[in-house]
Amino acid sequence: MAEYRAPTRDMLFMLNEVLDADRIRSLPGYDDYDPDTVSAVLDEAGRFAGEVLSPLNRSGDAEGVKWSAEGITPAQGFGSAYQQFVEGGWNGLTGSADHGGMGMPRVLGAVATEMWNAANMSFALCPVLTASAVEALENHGSDSLKQTYLDKLVTGEWTGCMDLTEPQAGSDLAQVRTKAEPDGDAYRLFGQKIYITWGEHDMADNIIHFVLARLPDAPAGVKGISLFLVPKFILDADGNPGERNDLACASIEHKLGIHACPTCTMSFGESGKGALGYLVGEENKGLAHMFTMMNAARHAMGLQGLGIADRAYQHALDYARERQQGGRAIVEHADVKRMLLTMRSQTDVLRALCLDSAAAMDVAERSDNQEDRAAAQARADVLIPVVKAWGTELGVDIANTGIQVHGGMGFVEETGAAQYLRDSRIAPIYEGTNGIQAIDLVGRKLIRDEGRGMRALIADIRATADGSAEGANAHPALSDALDLLEQATDTLLEAGRDAAMANAFNYLMLCGTVFGGWYAARISDVAKAALANDTDETDFYEARQACARFYIRQILPKAQGYAAMVAGGPDAVDTVDAARHL
Amino acid sequence: MAEYRAPTRDMLFMLNEVLDADRIRSLPGYDDYDPDTVSAVLDEAGRFAGEVLSPLNRSGDAEGVKWSAEGITPAQGFGSAYQQFVEGGWNGLTGSADHGGMGMPRVLGAVATEMWNAANMSFALCPVLTASAVEALENHGSDSLKQTYLDKLVTGEWTGCMDLTEPQAGSDLAQVRTKAEPDGDAYRLFGQKIYITWGEHDMADNIIHFVLARLPDAPAGVKGISLFLVPKFILDADGNPGERNDLACASIEHKLGIHACPTCTMSFGESGKGALGYLVGEENKGLAHMFTMMNAARHAMGLQGLGIADRAYQHALDYARERQQGGRAIVEHADVKRMLLTMRSQTDVLRALCLDSAAAMDVAERSDNQEDRAAAQARADVLIPVVKAWGTELGVDIANTGIQVHGGMGFVEETGAAQYLRDSRIAPIYEGTNGIQAIDLVGRKLIRDEGRGMRALIADIRATADGSAEGANAHPALSDALDLLEQATDTLLEAGRDAAMANAFNYLMLCGTVFGGWYAARISDVAKAALANDTDETDFYEARQACARFYIRQILPKAQGYAAMVAGGPDAVDTVDAARHL
Repeated sequence: MAEYRAPTRDMLFMLNEVLDADRIRSLPGYDDYDPDTVSAVLDEAGRFAGEVLSPLNRSGDAEGVKWSAEGITPAQGFGSAYQQFVEGGWNGLTGSADHGGMGMPRVLGAVATEMWNAANMSFALCPVLTASAVEALENHGSDSLKQTYLDKLVTGEWTGCMDLTEPQAGSDLAQVRTKAEPDGDAYRLFGQKIYITWGEHDMADNIIHFVLARLPDAPAGVKGISLFLVPKFILDADGNPGERNDLACASIEHKLGIHACPTCTMSFGESGKGALGYLVGEENKGLAHMFTMMNAARHAMGLQGLGIADRAYQHALDYARERQQGGRAIVEHADVKRMLLTMRSQTDVLRALCLDSAAAMDVAERSDNQEDRAAAQARADVLIPVVKAWGTELGVDIANTGIQVHGGMGFVEETGAAQYLRDSRIAPIYEGTNGIQAIDLVGRKLIRDEGRGMRALIADIRATADGSAEGANAHPALSDALDLLEQATDTLLEAGRDAAMANAFNYLMLCGTVFGGWYAARISDVAKAALANDTDETDFYEARQACARFYIRQILPKAQGYAAMVAGGPDAVDTVDAARHL
Repeated sequence: MAEYRAPTRDMLFMLNEVLDADRIRSLPGYDDYDPDTVSAVLDEAGRFAGEVLSPLNRSGDAEGVKWSAEGITPAQGFGSAYQQFVEGGWNGLTGSADHGGMGMPRVLGAVATEMWNAANMSFALCPVLTASAVEALENHGSDSLKQTYLDKLVTGEWTGCMDLTEPQAGSDLAQVRTKAEPDGDAYRLFGQKIYITWGEHDMADNIIHFVLARLPDAPAGVKGISLFLVPKFILDADGNPGERNDLACASIEHKLGIHACPTCTMSFGESGKGALGYLVGEENKGLAHMFTMMNAARHAMGLQGLGIADRAYQHALDYARERQQGGRAIVEHADVKRMLLTMRSQTDVLRALCLDSAAAMDVAERSDNQEDRAAAQARADVLIPVVKAWGTELGVDIANTGIQVHGGMGFVEETGAAQYLRDSRIAPIYEGTNGIQAIDLVGRKLIRDEGRGMRALIADIRATADGSAEGANAHPALSDALDLLEQATDTLLEAGRDAAMANAFNYLMLCGTVFGGWYAARISDVAKAALANDTDETDFYEARQACARFYIRQILPKAQGYAAMVAGGPDAVDTVDAARHL
């Protein structure tokens, strides 16, 4: 099985040609984001992903992780790979330079995260979780907590994880029951958390848990939840990991995929002492604090969909070039070519969407122009649920198609194609199910915003569809699809929140499909210009154009279906009595 | 985890109310197909599926099968379940009464096969393969072969399997290399076959392999392949299994799903003697003989999609009724309800499609009116690739949605929802990949037939869409979708075979979606009439109507997307150079 080959040329194309790299470079603090550095980072990251992480993907899947009462032993090679990851500075790529990071923008971090996920999704989840921990601490931690924990988390010397879910509290965190009892300046935590990704392992010297819990007499519901930092090992006077805290991994899940990633049930306070923890941010504001890092975390899930999609495509393409049937390689068969183009064309536009939204987050955080910041934040707010949900749906869909390209071999585990489907399948579920993303998009990002952010985005897409010359209608299929999105947007805004819920998921899929058409049109425009300009990379630009054309002709039409579903109204769902009709 | 509950009321609804049961009953030899018998068979089959097969589904998945040089040991309980299956007469349900079968029509066999697949797909594959063996033998075997082998295969005392694929010969059977050397009246076979489902096990006293192989000096390609019957145990003078034949299971595949079903690599003639085999039908006509049983085998794959879809739905619904979030069961949440309706509404119409096409096969085989036979055969020919491909795509899709309904629990193997996705994933691949089905539909069933069969079907759908009263336009959404199908049909007929190939899959999906709309309209009409008629099953008929409405409003719109893809033409695929652009 071939190892992952990072598509650095494609990534540079998106970063430098389709998107506006100067816009990022001109942000305060990002002067290091110059083309040479970007290119060098991509090469190095690609090498690390291909040579260190990718070879552990299949073996990690087959081996899984080992649980004992003492803790978790990751699969062979993971510990050493993690060590190299930290030493290479990869964990700190986007971390603040003040805390040992490289201070690079999110848009570059996104490219690297795509690579880690494509190479080895189980591994990649560890730094993704640590990144969330860093955000929580940076935004809400006291100076003392930051001083003690931030550097180690930025470098990855210690890993972080998020302990939110409980058996009765999944999508509905109002049900959280874990207790935090004051103990001097600190707290003692008691309770059980489930689905804690990389909640326990021995790859780093400490694991810093960010735990949602209730203070005594906290109000019921979401307004009584606080956020706590709970280290696996309590620090000694020198700030080094010392005594084991009163928390333990009680068990791990036996899962469909990401077998090399421990998904832990964590017990806090089993010994009766309680796990020592420290309040992060304000009392009872835990859930609000979590929202701060939600965009970045959800964005990272879209990158999982993207990474898996590209990996599945590479795998399927290799097989299709090699496998002979009917006297020629199956890559030449029309239906196989169609499948590969379906995979590749969607991967291209999904990458554009992921990087465009990462750039919006960069601008929203760093621009010195307040209007730009606000506009970029509004843009990110609209795009992120689509990145997460549409991106992870595509990840599953493309991995599924990758199996089909392999025929019978695709169903045999040793081939590796099946693992991508198994691994990818978690992404539409965690970090807010895709149904929750749709509710977020329609309820918070569309209706609460009275459609402003969405309309600004539609206007931008309209400009691409029209083209630069007046009346040019450069991309008529995009124009038509955009009309449908505009109508669907009006329909939902008129319907109001409750009535819109039954259509929210189809609306989100409509958004993803049309946004994808926007990026396809932009890719096509850029490739066309390059080809008109005597490029010496004819194959590359022709390929980008061919994929963009395929997307517009063969994928964008799905918008018609989604739009008709939204136009059909919510009655087909809302009039159904769940007790009598299901 | 709840066991499978056979949806007997739904099945009777389709058999007796939506489809025309009298049409089957009036066929020669099917007078026993009366309502009481049908109802009794469904009840008994449902009990067997729920009580005997379903409890082995999860355990069989976890345990898998054990290979040794002596043979395969199936998972715990499978041998005993198979014994009960045979003793209950289930294997012979549709088998000829002359050979120990019950002589029931295919349409009833289809209902039972749905149940076996829903309860335990790994188990169900064994009788499905035996049924293919029976067809091969009945249609092409000599009297002597029939006399010796047919009764035991009909009753299931011996099982059958199909040995077609070789490493270099998957979809392209022209590449078959297994050799058959004459040895008196018989032959000696040498070669290796892969992906042989239930090719080895100890649940029955003999296994009868139907093997494609080449005679010495046979012409190259598909016209040099012959079909042989090769028993695992050579029969002694009394017709009982005696000496072990020179064939062995060299290994089994480690697969994504159907873990309890052995997928064998079979070696013939390893010892040098060669495996003793008997020619079935004519020399060099093996592939043509295989085509005889293709419709039935492909139909059975659609039933796998259907069975898994219904099982996944039951599982998801149970969970959604129980799981509380946000102060109510999640079945009450609009997006969860939407997912369940997506599952259920498509399962309803897929069942109608499967049974309608089974009925067409019955009429094609049994009617004493030649025109009826021809028309029914043409109908079956058009429907079968859609049953296989659209049905198995739906199976995967619905199993996938079932996971999503479960949230995080869906990714945990013990929940059982993930197994349905893993198991279902093989069905779009085997028995002719879904790409092959699309080529069959467009190349053989549409273009070679000059569109006659498809136009006859479109006319029937038009009649439902129009309704009985003149100018009524009873189902306008169906009319619109049908217009799209008609246009797409014209487009492909004009394009010709080669140009149509790139669009074949989307055309097939368009067909499935619109045919589904037809059945939804018919279901809706029947339910409406029942409700107008003071039924005492108000909930049931309202539910059928609600699902039909959901299908028409929320699933049928996909036809717009597929139609636009076909209308977009094949250029987006055909102009792509596989070497330079992928």
